[in-house]
Amino acid sequence: MTSRLSLNQATTTQWDIPSFVDGCARAGVTQVGLWRGPVADHGLEKTAKLARDAGLTVTSLCRGGFFADADAIADNRKAIDEAAALGTSILVLVSGGLPPGSSDIDGARQNVIDSIAELAPYAAAQGVQLSIEPLHPMFAADRCVVSTLDQALDMALLFPANQVGVCVDTYHIWWDPGVYQAIARAAGRISIFQVCDWITPLPEGVLLGRGMMGDGCIELRRLRAAVDATGYAGPIEVEIFNQSIWDSPGDEVVDRVIGTYQEHVL
Amino acid sequence: MTSRLSLNQATTTQWDIPSFVDGCARAGVTQVGLWRGPVADHGLEKTAKLARDAGLTVTSLCRGGFFADADAIADNRKAIDEAAALGTSILVLVSGGLPPGSSDIDGARQNVIDSIAELAPYAAAQGVQLSIEPLHPMFAADRCVVSTLDQALDMALLFPANQVGVCVDTYHIWWDPGVYQAIARAAGRISIFQVCDWITPLPEGVLLGRGMMGDGCIELRRLRAAVDATGYAGPIEVEIFNQSIWDSPGDEVVDRVIGTYQEHVL
Repeated sequence: MTSRLSLNQATTTQWDIPSFVDGCARAGVTQVGLWRGPVADHGLEKTAKLARDAGLTVTSLCRGGFFADADAIADNRKAIDEAAALGTSILVLVSGGLPPGSSDIDGARQNVIDSIAELAPYAAAQGVQLSIEPLHPMFAADRCVVSTLDQALDMALLFPANQVGVCVDTYHIWWDPGVYQAIARAAGRISIFQVCDWITPLPEGVLLGRGMMGDGCIELRRLRAAVDATGYAGPIEVEIFNQSIWDSPGDEVVDRVIGTYQEHVL
Repeated sequence: MTSRLSLNQATTTQWDIPSFVDGCARAGVTQVGLWRGPVADHGLEKTAKLARDAGLTVTSLCRGGFFADADAIADNRKAIDEAAALGTSILVLVSGGLPPGSSDIDGARQNVIDSIAELAPYAAAQGVQLSIEPLHPMFAADRCVVSTLDQALDMALLFPANQVGVCVDTYHIWWDPGVYQAIARAAGRISIFQVCDWITPLPEGVLLGRGMMGDGCIELRRLRAAVDATGYAGPIEVEIFNQSIWDSPGDEVVDRVIGTYQEHVL
């Protein structure tokens, strides 16, 4: 019942890498999504070995992207290297917002494409697919100018499938009147599927407002079925940024993740 | 330079209706958008007379909608009556979110269409056009299931143009990769054009996070030009929900509105 479940590390930031690996073992979770920050804190090679020795599959690395930053290309090459070292074939791209003081959203979007064009062959040579994640439009200014699944797909389709795919996260796309057509169109390009729920009111800054599955209004099972109908049979990552979840004991969070995943996603 | 400017009352909630009318007179503002709540507080007929006597044109009434509410049809008929009494031909619809506990967004969207179908002939008979306003997708769950201009247009086009149009508000649609095509498609259906800017970080609840023109990242002049290119030559309403603006002296706010409108919108 949990064979496709992957626990994204951002759901349990109360744990450092060793605690996270131990917690997954206790709960029987065998797949994980990792983030670059905590991996760097623990050490890249040490993390890779720890995960390998624990029998964990790394389903994705978050995140490359932020292409408006001055050192974006160099930093993304590093992120690709890290993904390869961790043994995952997926680097999720959060493409970044507008440059400081800029209102040129078309320019920022073109820069995403140009940057991916520069990086994709390098990534593919290491067996890493870049996964463009559309973020909810409320993040368009400061976090990600890629705002819909269709837009992410338009970008991904400029490149070969082994180089660039899309990350489908229920939180970011559930509201889209065209979401089911977009998912169908994404057949063969879905790198990774992420789930969590939409709850209100949103907190200040809106980043940490995601909900546990079943606590909100997203049709998770319907979206999961639509993703499956494209032929995607890969991991389902649970990724929840939520301060009150981060303030809870990690083992309890993982238990809730497993329970609500079975109840609301499968 | 300000012949098309309309001051939406939601920008200066520090003023009651008489103060608002006086403030507009002091600043030379001749067009206003009104809200049902403060109008009811002052009295509908008294407000209509006050505006008339001051030579103010009422460019829109906010808001009808919230179609998931049990008394929605009756309340919207009342809103239509109020618009007619105030002498405006535009009733802006904020269509409402999901019913409590529901995740059936398709059903909620169909209910918007069904409700408008019931109301539109009644409105048109009183010379009032219903104006469907797409709200930013961050409001889809709790405030408006109409999330893009294309979606609002798909709904509006089910009805004759004198019955149903769309409200184009820069704050809600600026992020949309298809916004300029959607605006072009809206030719002949734009009831009213509203402006303000997008600023971050968003406050808790995200409702009061709008910015004064020029304080954020929206290409206001480009959007205004695109709206004009459809043939729309009507009012440009400035509508800013922002607590710090509401905490400022009203006259200062109106001065800033006029200045930033001329600098960033025209």
